[in-house]
Formats: sequence, structure tokens, C-alpha cells
Amino acid sequence: MAIYADNAATTRMSDTAVKAMLPYMQEVFGNPSSLHTAGQTAKEALNSARETVASCLGAEAKEIIFTSGGSEADNQAILTATAIGARKGKKHIISTAFEHHAVLHTLQKLEKQGFEVTYLDVHENGLVTAQEVSDAIREDTCLVTIMYANNEIGTIQPIAEIGAICKEKGVLFHTDAVQAVGHLHIDVKAQNIDMLSLSGHKFHGPKGVGALYVRKGILLMSLIEGGAQERGKRAGTENIPAIMGMAAAMKEACDHLEENHKYVSHLRDTLIGELSKIPHCALNGAKEPRLPGNVNFCFEGIEGESLLLLLDDLGICASSGSACTSGSLDPSHVLLAIGRPHEVAHGSLRLSLCEENTMDEVMEMAKGVADVVALLRRMSPVWRDLQEGKRNYVIQ
Amino acid sequence: MAIYADNAATTRMSDTAVKAMLPYMQEVFGNPSSLHTAGQTAKEALNSARETVASCLGAEAKEIIFTSGGSEADNQAILTATAIGARKGKKHIISTAFEHHAVLHTLQKLEKQGFEVTYLDVHENGLVTAQEVSDAIREDTCLVTIMYANNEIGTIQPIAEIGAICKEKGVLFHTDAVQAVGHLHIDVKAQNIDMLSLSGHKFHGPKGVGALYVRKGILLMSLIEGGAQERGKRAGTENIPAIMGMAAAMKEACDHLEENHKYVSHLRDTLIGELSKIPHCALNGAKEPRLPGNVNFCFEGIEGESLLLLLDDLGICASSGSACTSGSLDPSHVLLAIGRPHEVAHGSLRLSLCEENTMDEVMEMAKGVADVVALLRRMSPVWRDLQEGKRNYVIQ
Repeated sequence: MAIYADNAATTRMSDTAVKAMLPYMQEVFGNPSSLHTAGQTAKEALNSARETVASCLGAEAKEIIFTSGGSEADNQAILTATAIGARKGKKHIISTAFEHHAVLHTLQKLEKQGFEVTYLDVHENGLVTAQEVSDAIREDTCLVTIMYANNEIGTIQPIAEIGAICKEKGVLFHTDAVQAVGHLHIDVKAQNIDMLSLSGHKFHGPKGVGALYVRKGILLMSLIEGGAQERGKRAGTENIPAIMGMAAAMKEACDHLEENHKYVSHLRDTLIGELSKIPHCALNGAKEPRLPGNVNFCFEGIEGESLLLLLDDLGICASSGSACTSGSLDPSHVLLAIGRPHEVAHGSLRLSLCEENTMDEVMEMAKGVADVVALLRRMSPVWRDLQEGKRNYVIQ
Repeated sequence: MAIYADNAATTRMSDTAVKAMLPYMQEVFGNPSSLHTAGQTAKEALNSARETVASCLGAEAKEIIFTSGGSEADNQAILTATAIGARKGKKHIISTAFEHHAVLHTLQKLEKQGFEVTYLDVHENGLVTAQEVSDAIREDTCLVTIMYANNEIGTIQPIAEIGAICKEKGVLFHTDAVQAVGHLHIDVKAQNIDMLSLSGHKFHGPKGVGALYVRKGILLMSLIEGGAQERGKRAGTENIPAIMGMAAAMKEACDHLEENHKYVSHLRDTLIGELSKIPHCALNGAKEPRLPGNVNFCFEGIEGESLLLLLDDLGICASSGSACTSGSLDPSHVLLAIGRPHEVAHGSLRLSLCEENTMDEVMEMAKGVADVVALLRRMSPVWRDLQEGKRNYVIQ
């Protein structure tokens, strides 16, 4: 039986989520825009899912728009804020150098359209400070978009402090919370978040569905034009089965947030402790504040992709960084952002845990990683050079 | 037991489609971008689904991009063609007055950006001619976008002829084939279609998934920026369960296309024959060429929404037009486009059938509609005026 430790890439759907989806495939399958009973029954389900999602975030139901996932939500949030900004002549955006590509690529598109983006440097601990955000805000700043928790190294930004500053300065604040929702306690009102993106499949819900929280009063811009679904802000027949599955998974995650956090953090800390015994390795990002399931190490003298493939042979599903960029030969932009040199950034490993993992699995992974790192180092000319003093260790 | 006759709005998922989805929720649930076995197994499934969808259209696998549905596919196709056109200084588009709103609203957005759109008039029979398309093409035309089959009245456009003309004149041709795929034989190469949109839930596949066929050589523009999924043209973790369900449903529909077409057309023609016995009613759109399952009538002197609600009381799920506009008080833009006056367009009924409907249901619907129309007319002041000669009948 394989050990799945790539929960930041995607999760196994929970029984609760599957059970919540199934009735909407063949029984209550109507189009919620239809006036007949089959349609209106589906519409009632949609409304209840919206209430559930909203209540998990401390939002109101009318502040939730369902999307096809986190990327779509990120795109729509950023394009909305910048369209509002542009109308007022405000074309400056603040973000960080280690956002998800759904944010970074959207910002790059906007730069081509004349927007200016300040990418805040991320400290070695994987954090930016609220003061740095504050210092970067200008008269023409229309948007601050900073991820809640990083998808590769799991560090959690000071969202409430950033939110307070943005509110004070009258700048819209969006956060990509794809890795945080279902794992951390979120209250969009208390944290002064204006827009928040989330994705169902990161907390044991279905793929192909997400949501965007938009504070009331902000006029959302459509990304997909067409029918009047989602109050005219997101066209296309609502994906009721997936929405129901996501809402059920989100409720389940929020209902068990504290116990899961405690259990998964303990697994994480044990694994970090075990892996730290390997010579010349380092945890990427601060140990706290960190997502409960995130473990991300750099191992000197080896190449992350080989590490992954050998772990896979041992039945351990891991990642070298983000799944979304796994085809790329470039080192992780996140690890570069926190100051890892190229050669070390190439030797990274992310193990992302969830409440389905066990302590036995953690110990098996710790042993597997230690064995594979040792094996790869025996074959590595870089490691030989390091051992022979022809190169200097980056990680002591 | 209710009679479901709103298959143009959405369909019940087939057992085949559900069965094809389920293994990808909890067993093969990996992210196809992940390098481990769980990810690569999902990627193989994705590739096989792409082959299946392509082969049902006569396309190559690399010409298929998966989307969250038909609306997204329509938006992306049109924005791609017009971005290509704009780079060449070509900012004229040809479409029709009765397209789906996913097309019409995208065109309206482009008009605000300086594009000019020629909306071809639709004849009373619900058709445009290839000659009319040809006559409208100008030096600066960058796109012809005409729906394959209309979602309200089911009339089928001369797609191959339009495709031939567009090819000859070097203009990109997109067709919204959301209502056609799975119901009509389509061959994108033989029909010279450059881009085609489809939606899974219109042929007993899942909601929240669709596809865009894009002829190789056309550089697709991203609508959703982010990760490098779908060859960098559609970011977001691939919705593998839904894609597998859609591919299975599409194969099933294509494998049984002829027998379903024959069976459903027979139901349709019987229902048209029965409903035609009601005085002062008329079929909207020509009887041929017409989608096998589409029946759409106007009944003089009554109001469509009341008709729907009373039919719903009888357990008959029908529609007055498109589900996507059912909340609107305006009469159908499709019926206005084929020349129905406002007062008649308000009295419309769409019954859309599929292979799950039976002849018994057809006869029950025919009786139900006749009874409800008679009841509503007894209460209708307009009908009294018509009967007393104070108004003239529009439909003889």
C-alpha cells in the first residue's frame, strides 16, 4: 500500500464528500436555473451549499461565488480589483515573489497592460511582514494580493495584520487561501479580507470546483460571460454535484479543524525531527507559523526529481515543489524567493500530510528519505566534491 | 413519477458516466501534474479521455482542451480568434442574432472594445444560409461564430457549408456545438470547423466540464492564467473525474448516435403531431433540420411561465426557452430573432426529449399540454379578446 504524502497537490475525496455529490448526479440533477421542481430542488441545494461555505469563512452567503477552482478564483479576483483600480487611475499592485502561478501569471499579464507590480521580497523564514506591505502601499495602489499559506513551504503570512493595514489605507486585499481553507481557522471579517480564493480538492472535496469570497460592495467582474448564473458574475450551469461535495468537505474540515490541526502538526513535527537528522539538509521556511501538514526540505548534493522517483519506487508519493510546475526544469521560484541558491533549490522535497496519514507512515517516510538521500549522494559527483572539500557546503 | 423533458437544459447522468467518474475520486485521485505513480496514473487517464473526445469529433487529441464547460469554451474561443484578428488589424465578427448568451455577451464585451459585429438575421425557419455568411464576410473579418444547433428551437445550421466558405475566405470559424455534440454526427475536419465548444452535461455526462476543439496551428489564448495544465492554455488542476465521466458519456452517445437519433426523432415527431392539434399554436423553427429531441411551440393567448408551472404540477418538467435566461421577464431573444411578435413569444414551451423518454410519456405530455393550454385560455383576457374578434390571431 502506497503512502500518499502529496496532499498539497491534491487530496483523496472523503467519503462524506462523495456521499454529498452522488444524489445530484442522477436523482436531483436538474438545472438550478429551471423553474420546474427538478430545477428548483437543485437551486435549494445550491443555496444551502453557499450558506455552508460562507459560514466556514465567517462570510455571508451572498458574498460567495462558485468557480471551477482556485486558479479561476484568483484570476477573477485580481482582474476585478485592477479593473476597479484602473477606473480610478490606480495601477499599482503589491504582491510577493512566491505567490502561486495563478496569481503571478495574472500579474504578469497586467504588467503588459501598464500595471506596475511591487513583488515584496520574502524573508528566509518564508514570511513577509505587515510593515513591509504598509511601506509599499502608494497613492496609486489598487490591490494587495498575498497568499494565505504558501503551497510549497507552508509558511503562513500575517493575514489579519495585512488586512488591517489595507483596510486603514483603503486598498483592496485579496488572498489566495487555496492551501489554508479547511486547515486553518479563517474569519474574513475579523481578518479584513476583501477577496479570498479557495479550491475544493485541497481539503478532500472534489476537483473542478472552488469559490471566491468577495466582500459585499465590491462589484465583481465576470471572467466567463454568458448566462446569469452566480448573480450574473460567473456564467455556466452550476456544477451542483461538485459544489455539494465541496461544501460537505469544507464543513467536515471546519468541524474537525482543531483536532486535525493537532494530530497533523504532531505528524509534521515528528517527520521534521527525523529528517533533520540527515546531514546537510535544511527545512525550507520557518517551522512556525506553518501549515500543519507541510514538510519541505532541501538536501545538499542531490537532485529532487531523482529523489522523488526513487521514493515513488518505495511507494511514497511526494513532490519536489508545486504539482503545477512539476514539468519544469527550473528550480522552484518559491525556494529562490526565500534565498536558496539554485543548486540547493534543485534538491528539494515536499511531503504534505493530512489526517489520513499515520505515525507508522511518518516513520516509514523518514527511513525511506534517509535511505534514498544516502543512495543518491553515493552516486552524486557534487556530493563527492563536497566531501572532498572541492566545493563548500551551502547547508552546514 | 415525474416526466423529465428538459434535456436541453441538462441531462441525468448515465450509469456509464457515473461509473467512469467514481474510480477517480478516491482510488486514482492523484494530480496529473505530479511525477509519482498516483499522478502519472491520473495523467494516463486524462490522455485516454482526450483521445476519446477527439475521436468522437474526428479531431486529434492534441486539438482538445478541457474546460469547465461550454460557456468557458465559447469565451476562450472567441477571445482567441479576436486577439489573433486584432493583431492583424481585423476587428469584424460575424454571428447570428440567436446565439447562446455565452457567445452574445462575449461579443457585446468585444463591441465595447472596438470590434464590429454583424448579427445575421435568422429566417422564420430558424436558419441562416451559407450564402448570407459569405455575403457578410469582409476584408477585416476575423471570426465567424455560429451555433451548430439552437438551444431553444433546435434548428441545425448548415455548418459544413459555412465551414467551407470560411476556409475558402481564410476566416476562422467557431461553432457553439453544446446542443449538437452527442446528438448529431460531427466531423470537424470534413466540416472545416476551426473551433468547437461542447459541454458534458448536455449528453448525460457530468456538469462542470466541457471541451474546446481548436484546430492545430491556432494558438489558443488563456482565459485562466496559472499552471501549465492543458499545454499552458488552461490553468487549474485537471478535473479528472468529470473529464472521465464526460469522455465515457460522449463515447456512449456517439456509439449509439444513429439508433438514439431515430428513436428520439420519432418521439419528437409524434409529440409535434399531437401538439399541432391544439388550435392557434405553431412549431417554432423548421421541422427539419432539427435536433432529434427538440419540440418548441408558441401557444396564442397564454403566458409561458404559467404553462410551465401548471405542467410542473402535473409532474412534467419543461421549459419556456433556455434555462440560462429563465429568471428573465423578457421574451426569448431566439423567438424574437425568428420573427415571433412579443405577445406570442411569451407563450412558448420547449419540451426537450432524450432516449430515456418513452412514447407513453409523449402521449401524457401531449394530453397535459392540451389540458393546461385550454385551462389557461379559459382564464386569459387576451384569449377572450381573440375569440370575440377584438384582437386578431397572430397564429392561424
